[in-house]
Amino acid sequence: MKIMRKRSKRPGLPPGTLVYVGDNKHVKSSIKIFDYNADNITETDIKNPNELATCLADNTVSWINITGLNDLELIEKIGNIFEIHPLVMEDIVNTDHRPKFEEYDEYYYSIVKMLTWDEKNAEMNSEQVSFILGKNYLITFQEIEGDVFDTIRERLRKNKGRVRREDSDYLCYTLMDSIVDNYFYVLETIAEETELLEDNLLKNADSSVLQRIHQLKRQLIFMRKSVWPLREILNNIDRLESDLVKSSSKLFFRDVYDHTIQIIDTVENLRDIVTGMLDIYLSTISNRMNEVMKVLTIIATIFIPLTFLAGIYGMNFQYMPELAWKFGYPMALGAMGLVGIIMLVFFRRKKWL
Amino acid sequence: MKIMRKRSKRPGLPPGTLVYVGDNKHVKSSIKIFDYNADNITETDIKNPNELATCLADNTVSWINITGLNDLELIEKIGNIFEIHPLVMEDIVNTDHRPKFEEYDEYYYSIVKMLTWDEKNAEMNSEQVSFILGKNYLITFQEIEGDVFDTIRERLRKNKGRVRREDSDYLCYTLMDSIVDNYFYVLETIAEETELLEDNLLKNADSSVLQRIHQLKRQLIFMRKSVWPLREILNNIDRLESDLVKSSSKLFFRDVYDHTIQIIDTVENLRDIVTGMLDIYLSTISNRMNEVMKVLTIIATIFIPLTFLAGIYGMNFQYMPELAWKFGYPMALGAMGLVGIIMLVFFRRKKWL
Amino acid sequence: MKIMRKRSKRPGLPPGTLVYVGDNKHVKSSIKIFDYNADNITETDIKNPNELATCLADNTVSWINITGLNDLELIEKIGNIFEIHPLVMEDIVNTDHRPKFEEYDEYYYSIVKMLTWDEKNAEMNSEQVSFILGKNYLITFQEIEGDVFDTIRERLRKNKGRVRREDSDYLCYTLMDSIVDNYFYVLETIAEETELLEDNLLKNADSSVLQRIHQLKRQLIFMRKSVWPLREILNNIDRLESDLVKSSSKLFFRDVYDHTIQIIDTVENLRDIVTGMLDIYLSTISNRMNEVMKVLTIIATIFIPLTFLAGIYGMNFQYMPELAWKFGYPMALGAMGLVGIIMLVFFRRKKWL
Amino acid sequence: MKIMRKRSKRPGLPPGTLVYVGDNKHVKSSIKIFDYNADNITETDIKNPNELATCLADNTVSWINITGLNDLELIEKIGNIFEIHPLVMEDIVNTDHRPKFEEYDEYYYSIVKMLTWDEKNAEMNSEQVSFILGKNYLITFQEIEGDVFDTIRERLRKNKGRVRREDSDYLCYTLMDSIVDNYFYVLETIAEETELLEDNLLKNADSSVLQRIHQLKRQLIFMRKSVWPLREILNNIDRLESDLVKSSSKLFFRDVYDHTIQIIDTVENLRDIVTGMLDIYLSTISNRMNEVMKVLTIIATIFIPLTFLAGIYGMNFQYMPELAWKFGYPMALGAMGLVGIIMLVFFRRKKWL
Amino acid sequence: MKIMRKRSKRPGLPPGTLVYVGDNKHVKSSIKIFDYNADNITETDIKNPNELATCLADNTVSWINITGLNDLELIEKIGNIFEIHPLVMEDIVNTDHRPKFEEYDEYYYSIVKMLTWDEKNAEMNSEQVSFILGKNYLITFQEIEGDVFDTIRERLRKNKGRVRREDSDYLCYTLMDSIVDNYFYVLETIAEETELLEDNLLKNADSSVLQRIHQLKRQLIFMRKSVWPLREILNNIDRLESDLVKSSSKLFFRDVYDHTIQIIDTVENLRDIVTGMLDIYLSTISNRMNEVMKVLTIIATIFIPLTFLAGIYGMNFQYMPELAWKFGYPMALGAMGLVGIIMLVFFRRKKWL
Repeated sequence: MKIMRKRSKRPGLPPGTLVYVGDNKHVKSSIKIFDYNADNITETDIKNPNELATCLADNTVSWINITGLNDLELIEKIGNIFEIHPLVMEDIVNTDHRPKFEEYDEYYYSIVKMLTWDEKNAEMNSEQVSFILGKNYLITFQEIEGDVFDTIRERLRKNKGRVRREDSDYLCYTLMDSIVDNYFYVLETIAEETELLEDNLLKNADSSVLQRIHQLKRQLIFMRKSVWPLREILNNIDRLESDLVKSSSKLFFRDVYDHTIQIIDTVENLRDIVTGMLDIYLSTISNRMNEVMKVLTIIATIFIPLTFLAGIYGMNFQYMPELAWKFGYPMALGAMGLVGIIMLVFFRRKKWL
Repeated sequence: MKIMRKRSKRPGLPPGTLVYVGDNKHVKSSIKIFDYNADNITETDIKNPNELATCLADNTVSWINITGLNDLELIEKIGNIFEIHPLVMEDIVNTDHRPKFEEYDEYYYSIVKMLTWDEKNAEMNSEQVSFILGKNYLITFQEIEGDVFDTIRERLRKNKGRVRREDSDYLCYTLMDSIVDNYFYVLETIAEETELLEDNLLKNADSSVLQRIHQLKRQLIFMRKSVWPLREILNNIDRLESDLVKSSSKLFFRDVYDHTIQIIDTVENLRDIVTGMLDIYLSTISNRMNEVMKVLTIIATIFIPLTFLAGIYGMNFQYMPELAWKFGYPMALGAMGLVGIIMLVFFRRKKWL
Repeated sequence: MKIMRKRSKRPGLPPGTLVYVGDNKHVKSSIKIFDYNADNITETDIKNPNELATCLADNTVSWINITGLNDLELIEKIGNIFEIHPLVMEDIVNTDHRPKFEEYDEYYYSIVKMLTWDEKNAEMNSEQVSFILGKNYLITFQEIEGDVFDTIRERLRKNKGRVRREDSDYLCYTLMDSIVDNYFYVLETIAEETELLEDNLLKNADSSVLQRIHQLKRQLIFMRKSVWPLREILNNIDRLESDLVKSSSKLFFRDVYDHTIQIIDTVENLRDIVTGMLDIYLSTISNRMNEVMKVLTIIATIFIPLTFLAGIYGMNFQYMPELAWKFGYPMALGAMGLVGIIMLVFFRRKKWL
Repeated sequence: MKIMRKRSKRPGLPPGTLVYVGDNKHVKSSIKIFDYNADNITETDIKNPNELATCLADNTVSWINITGLNDLELIEKIGNIFEIHPLVMEDIVNTDHRPKFEEYDEYYYSIVKMLTWDEKNAEMNSEQVSFILGKNYLITFQEIEGDVFDTIRERLRKNKGRVRREDSDYLCYTLMDSIVDNYFYVLETIAEETELLEDNLLKNADSSVLQRIHQLKRQLIFMRKSVWPLREILNNIDRLESDLVKSSSKLFFRDVYDHTIQIIDTVENLRDIVTGMLDIYLSTISNRMNEVMKVLTIIATIFIPLTFLAGIYGMNFQYMPELAWKFGYPMALGAMGLVGIIMLVFFRRKKWL
Repeated sequence: MKIMRKRSKRPGLPPGTLVYVGDNKHVKSSIKIFDYNADNITETDIKNPNELATCLADNTVSWINITGLNDLELIEKIGNIFEIHPLVMEDIVNTDHRPKFEEYDEYYYSIVKMLTWDEKNAEMNSEQVSFILGKNYLITFQEIEGDVFDTIRERLRKNKGRVRREDSDYLCYTLMDSIVDNYFYVLETIAEETELLEDNLLKNADSSVLQRIHQLKRQLIFMRKSVWPLREILNNIDRLESDLVKSSSKLFFRDVYDHTIQIIDTVENLRDIVTGMLDIYLSTISNRMNEVMKVLTIIATIFIPLTFLAGIYGMNFQYMPELAWKFGYPMALGAMGLVGIIMLVFFRRKKWL
């Protein structure tokens, strides 16, 4: 979860120059096509992008899913076939881009962040997914092959739900919905971690808590950065006046919008709670420290005057009458005990003990 | 009062799949119908949802109250009878949803949170109540059977107030009003607890205060999360142009809006006050600690030089002239007393004592 | 200055049920009428609300001032005579209501908070004043008989200013203006207290400062809560298109609006200043404490090694050659002096002293 | 720089009552008129306000500058001659008013704050300047005679720039521009002081820093309060549709608007920086204190066990074999040295030293 | 990176007076012209501004780049040739101006900040770049000759990309785009420094961290101040209805707008993270300090009672029976050991050790 990815693009390059900035340089680009209508479905893996031209022609809905954004040449070819604007192509491979939605004459372009929870490292991973929604086709660009879309693929193959009966806009909704559903999963993990931390906070607050609070905070900042613009995207889709997104589908996009709002709400509340936890942690630490210091200081304070008394009768003056008294020693001990008790009583009365 | 409930729904399920996410899995679903007009009222408990179809036909107002959202099959049947959109049905049982209002052609759908104060555990409970307001009928979905609506039932039975003379929109207002009235009750409890805590804050601030401040904060965050969207809901109702909500009823909804604003205001003020209390608590603790440390340190500081003096005359050098002096001992004691007094005077002049 | 008054109304009561929630349960309700035009004025105390009906008929302006909101029956009667909406009547006696403005067909209804400074307890008192502005009449409901309106009564009696020549809208302005003028007075008292506290802050910051800062903060939160909605009320009056408020009067209401903005501004600035004072106080306390601790610790630190030296020569070993030296004792004293001086020099060079 | 000036006006006085609230009660009111067109200019000091009536008649531009707002009678007379609304007259002498802009039929009224830097006391002074801009005339009311307008007077006399060729709106712009230019000067002084303080912060942070940070904060709060509403004023002027402010002049007012935004920006940034400085100061102080305490505590901690060892061999038991050993003393010294060295090594390894 | 540059302009100077306020007083002003269309390009350095007049006449696009703003006379001449408004000329040389966009009849005027990272001093440099975009020409004013525009010059010379085929609006976009691309570079450097600091924060937090956090904060404040208004500028360009900026170019400006939003987002997130780091730093320091103090205090606390015991048996009373006991010494040692062990056990059980 880096704050900002290194853009290798040198400032001043002409617009439309494709430069991939992501971490997944090793992923081989591959193209997978689902071509379907209510009755039939074909699933093809393609090597040569020129074969894509047929997708535009036929009457079925085509979902073209490109995984791996390294092969810039391949991606440029796809852009040419579908007549995608060069600036869009630049944004597809610039995978550090902010989520956004743009209208073009023949298609809509949208960037969305897919968040996945990496159980192993206990951190959030972010992947940029670009959608190009056109008449009868939907192109999606992914950085790595994830399993979030697998349930959708299954629904397509098995003709579950209404996705096979609907157009490319509904497919787009289904994919976005599964991305947002995944946000919930990630957020639940963070919420659970927060509650766990909260429980332990007052019991055994050690210094690792601090680091975990900091990590939670950064994850929430990161999450908000990914989800907040999505709200705007879905708002834009709702306001579209176009044939590409039918009004019956808009109802579904509005449902995703609802979920997005709910996620933003929960993120904000979690931020409030985590900030509050920092306060609690700091004062717990400081309280516990104070308690330790107080008791220890009191012990020292009681014995210091007593030691002084002992020191007095340890002096070697020749004429110290008390030293020769028969009951000098028990009297000295008694005096010491008395002083100690008086101080204890005084401390307790002051409620310091 | 969990931050977020576990959604058992797997990401990528088709929209409209009913999954209940609440904590009240044990509550048996039951249906209760109030069928009334100004003159008559019948109260029925129903087992078979098919009997509901009659409610649509007749001329009376029907209040169909479903308690317990476990029986997903039952709820789906009700949805089919009243031709409710699948996404609405999904939201009804997804009881962690944010309050919202949606217009459909034949009905309005609204989610509201009912907050109740659990005296036993001294915490706030939240329950999701869904309203489906249609022509001549109002369907409400509750998670558990609470007693907030009991006064309304009583008013219906005894024909108190105007509720029997009015339409389903007025019934909807009455129920929402009783929910908001209950917010006041919960808020009063929190406000009382805040004032109690505030009074004790300066007197005897122990570490339990911290935890209670944290709890108050979380309760206020939770409350705000529940009430804030209600404002928008009531705003939406006010802007409706429809026969389902009559303009004479809008006046009443506006009154609920007023109360909601007042609650939000009080919640914000309470948050300010509670945040201020944390500051006060921290500095009270720190002040008291400082006072303890100061007095104790001063005692130690006075006796340390004195002990040093005693140590000097405890040395065993053979040639220490003072030791042989007749008044050596009283002089040493005098010197110690003098040093002690000088230090006390110095400390007092510096206002450290 | 309670955060929230106890609403004795049970949740779920029918709307329009009158329940008085204020602290002034002992005040006897009374009705006072000023009936005036440019030429004449009559001042009457009324027992029976039925006599009020005449106010509606005649051509003069009638100011009906009700003091004390306990006699719910009396207030309900007045509501019936002037055909006030039941929800308005409910708000009049629910004296914990947020300031607001509402348009009805025949009258405007507005709630305003009157703040007075209680010199004796050095705290702010709040009283709810309701205005019902109709054609030729203005009804005001007060909780207690205050003296803020006395100057207006005097101006009415002595025909000072233009109030006698104008309509009921101008009278309403005059009363609101005197309430807002009183805010200035209260705010001045708070500002003075703030400046006083600020001056003393750096001189003698004791723990009472903390409590006074907390009180100032709460008073400012309370003030903002009362004044902020007033802005909206006056904005609403300015946007009215009606005969009841003449455009010549609007200029005067806009002047009150101006003052309200000025008060809000000052409240916000005071909040900033008071928050800053808390920081200053905390660091002053901490600075002073640090200074004490430092000097005391240094004293202890210097004497501890010296005491150790004395301890060494207080050991009773039989073979300690230094003990038999003729100048052992002065040398030991010298060594102690030297160590002490070296430490002092070291501390001073480190700027710790 | 008081938070709020004492309003001597008693609450409830009729509107339009003139009460001067400023600090400059000693300044004698005087009237100075500049009467000019492109060709001629006359400069007159006037005693009797009745002479002002001629200004309305002639064809030249008249700048009537009133200094000193004590002579309420004089000011009321001027108001009557130019038919100024009583509420405007009240605001002119109520010199604690918020900057604002108001449209009247025959003139515009605007309040602006003139800020000057008092080098002697190193604080900001605020003076209220009121503008009444009418056809062919501009009346300005100042509390004291400052030198900010002197350059404008010089430009008028020497016919520098385009001011003599333009109308009263341009003159109004020139004066406001010189006031805003003066804000820059004041802000520069504050910015310099901030940078100076920032440089010294890490070097020698003593307790005076705290007070200077507090003063900077208050000055910035005060500055923002004066400048923020000016933005609105200039926005209002830009939106005017009137002959009094020509569209060619609006371009100049927009330039002042630009400067105002720049000032607000800088004030906000300074506030951020000063707030950050407080954090730095507090942790610098705390860091330095900690360092002192740590070293001193370590010294004490090393010697305490050593003193204990010395104490053991200072005991007077008859049977203490070590005391009779020949090398008892050097061995004891050696043991002490060893313990000391072990502790030093331990502390250093823990990086506490 | 000064907070505010000294404006040498005296308050009250006539508008349109040119005063250069920048730090680059030594840079000699120079004029460089690129005159191009799709086929040809000429590159000229010019001494006499009068030669510029030809640029207006011909049909090619002219990019007139002025470097160094000292030669006020030269700049005024250029202003006269292109008939630039005096206020615009004033803003061009007032290089402390806020970024802005203004429409004039014949041209658009825009101020943008160019940020460069000074590797040597590890700080951000800011330079003001003014754009005057007219029909067929673009004038840019720079304070110093930087290398950010060099890639554009190269693209012009080598006819790379579409810049030679397009009009002056596209050139303006290209330059702004390269400035914004440079922001990314600067931001990356800051983000890297932030992550570096974050990594080291928990390992070895010394006092230099504080200063670096403060510097990061100031750089982010400065960056936000430069970038935030750019958003508005690009928004304004998008809303233009004019021939000067073609709608095909607007798509490109919108791309720059996108990048600006992304930068603002990252700046805000960085601010959040840096603020969080301060909290972490402070509590790390305080935690570490507490740990030191605790262990040291415990050591002292254990030995103080032991030393007291040793002191008792160092007293010189004649009648102290224990002293004569055969096993007095080992018993005393044993008692001391016991007390020490009890205290250790007690401390450990309390989890203080």
